Amino acid sequence: MNSNQKTKLTEISQLGEFVLISKLTNFNHIKHKSTIKAIGDDAAVIERSNKETVVTTDLMVEGIHFNLMYTPLKHLGYKAVIVNLSDIYAMNAIPKYITVSIAVSNRFSYEALVELYAGIYTACELYNVDLIGGDTSSSEKGMFISITAIGEGEKENIVYRNTAKPNDLVCVSGDLGAAYMGLQVLERETDIFKSTPEIQPDLSDYDYILKRQLKPEARKDIIEILKLNKIVPTSMIDISDGLSSEILHICNQSQVGCEIYEERLPISDETIKMADEINILPTIAAMNGGEDYELLFTLNLKDYDKIKEFKEITVIGHITELNQGINLITKDGTSAPIIAQGWNAMDEHR
Amino acid sequence: MNSNQKTKLTEISQLGEFVLISKLTNFNHIKHKSTIKAIGDDAAVIERSNKETVVTTDLMVEGIHFNLMYTPLKHLGYKAVIVNLSDIYAMNAIPKYITVSIAVSNRFSYEALVELYAGIYTACELYNVDLIGGDTSSSEKGMFISITAIGEGEKENIVYRNTAKPNDLVCVSGDLGAAYMGLQVLERETDIFKSTPEIQPDLSDYDYILKRQLKPEARKDIIEILKLNKIVPTSMIDISDGLSSEILHICNQSQVGCEIYEERLPISDETIKMADEINILPTIAAMNGGEDYELLFTLNLKDYDKIKEFKEITVIGHITELNQGINLITKDGTSAPIIAQGWNAMDEHR
Repeated sequence: MNSNQKTKLTEISQLGEFVLISKLTNFNHIKHKSTIKAIGDDAAVIERSNKETVVTTDLMVEGIHFNLMYTPLKHLGYKAVIVNLSDIYAMNAIPKYITVSIAVSNRFSYEALVELYAGIYTACELYNVDLIGGDTSSSEKGMFISITAIGEGEKENIVYRNTAKPNDLVCVSGDLGAAYMGLQVLERETDIFKSTPEIQPDLSDYDYILKRQLKPEARKDIIEILKLNKIVPTSMIDISDGLSSEILHICNQSQVGCEIYEERLPISDETIKMADEINILPTIAAMNGGEDYELLFTLNLKDYDKIKEFKEITVIGHITELNQGINLITKDGTSAPIIAQGWNAMDEHR
Repeated sequence: MNSNQKTKLTEISQLGEFVLISKLTNFNHIKHKSTIKAIGDDAAVIERSNKETVVTTDLMVEGIHFNLMYTPLKHLGYKAVIVNLSDIYAMNAIPKYITVSIAVSNRFSYEALVELYAGIYTACELYNVDLIGGDTSSSEKGMFISITAIGEGEKENIVYRNTAKPNDLVCVSGDLGAAYMGLQVLERETDIFKSTPEIQPDLSDYDYILKRQLKPEARKDIIEILKLNKIVPTSMIDISDGLSSEILHICNQSQVGCEIYEERLPISDETIKMADEINILPTIAAMNGGEDYELLFTLNLKDYDKIKEFKEITVIGHITELNQGINLITKDGTSAPIIAQGWNAMDEHR
């Protein structure tokens, strides 16, 4: 963006929809032979496959899901793709195609959209996904990004939320709460900037948690590890609204209870440091902070030996009978019911 | 809406996202055995098929694509689905699944969304389509509806835009320009209402053109006729931005020219009447009025006998060599190049 800011920016209305689409899709690189037709017709065409098709869609709205005060457009485009891919991986499937629809007000230039699409294309390259369609429109106010991701999975290997069984182990990938802590840094610095714009913030201490908020990754690697080790989780979900919310989905849909151990929650040092700074418990960030895009899954006990070596997978508890409830066992050994505070509570901050 | 308006309306924020989704999807009725999982997991799952998959997506934005001053929410939901299905039919394929993402500001009540979804479900029932996923969000201003439709077609029967050949016949379904004339009525009456709200308009004379604007249909019947008569068009597109714009797409992508005969353009009496009233040429409405959602297709001459009986299909011209240009032959016999005035020109009015 820096070099563009010095040159004259192009108003989108100068281009018209067809020219705009053609310019933005110039950079599109089709990787799958199965993409028979991508952009340029009434619809995209995908070759038949001997696998099941998996479809998910996510909408990101300016002022609700992102704040352009501190979100670089390239990161935003990247993240908008990632949140969808994460949902496909959470089915134990492989994403292959996306469609991208955007609406933007006239305060966005053509160059701004090029940045946004640069992020989208980067995610497509890294995750081996084809952009096969989309729509662009103006909006009266704000930016809207609606992405649909389509993937493939083998019927017998697709994993749902409603199939966890008592005695299964509860596992998570990576660490929890960092994206939420990154958001706290960004909002704090934005407030400081608003009151004293001459102060240049030094954010280098917060690299990890900022990256988790601004440029999250989807856990393709975990799905590959599971496949390589012939492990099919008994249930799985991605953590977008916070661990509390997601474990409740799995337990409620599977009609089971669970015990999650506070001391087992994987939390990074950077998350703990920031939580201390703003005086909240790291456990609260891990349980209720959203946007980690880690995978939460349950495993049959027999698979424990296969995963215990993987640092990126942590066993955080086990599934119980329904009547035992959905509980967090705190560090002092007491049991407290887990309550969803994810979406509603977090959303006010986004 | 009338009965609801008398009762207290429910604010969406009172419900929260999960309750809202669960209430709205209560009415969802899954029709296809191939829908293994619809709403309720990280992604929907569709059974493998021996056909190609066809995917399209369309975004509708308040203030750009629709005006809630005169658009009933139920019609809006219906139309938002139809515009996507029309794109699937335009590939000579059959739509089977949709995802629906919506963002609404807090001026919309839960009851308003129920109306919108009633229209979405009605379209799903009539066109035999399953709602398999979606997302809901708040917006700072206005309503956004993003729908992705997924369909199936046999590889050898899928029809593209870039395969028209010289001497092919150019055909359209139904009639043209009516949706644009309906829009003119609605905008005129809205202006009158704004200046003199006590006047109750009598719109009964405009039934047909209003229906074409507010509650269009996708031409499922034409695709069925073609199939029944073993006709595969040589190229096809749906008319969403006006005939001029669409014939240019076909000719440019196929590297051919065409001659379209003004006297052959199918225009309804109601469209002609309204065009007279507002003093524009019916041909202009037919060529450049958008949102007809008719099919424009080209046929090999050998298929002419098979379609000449169908009132809903009109031959409007033929494909020529590239160097002969893309021309309208007017009623007085002169030839004029066709210029796209669809999207950009129309968009100012939407």
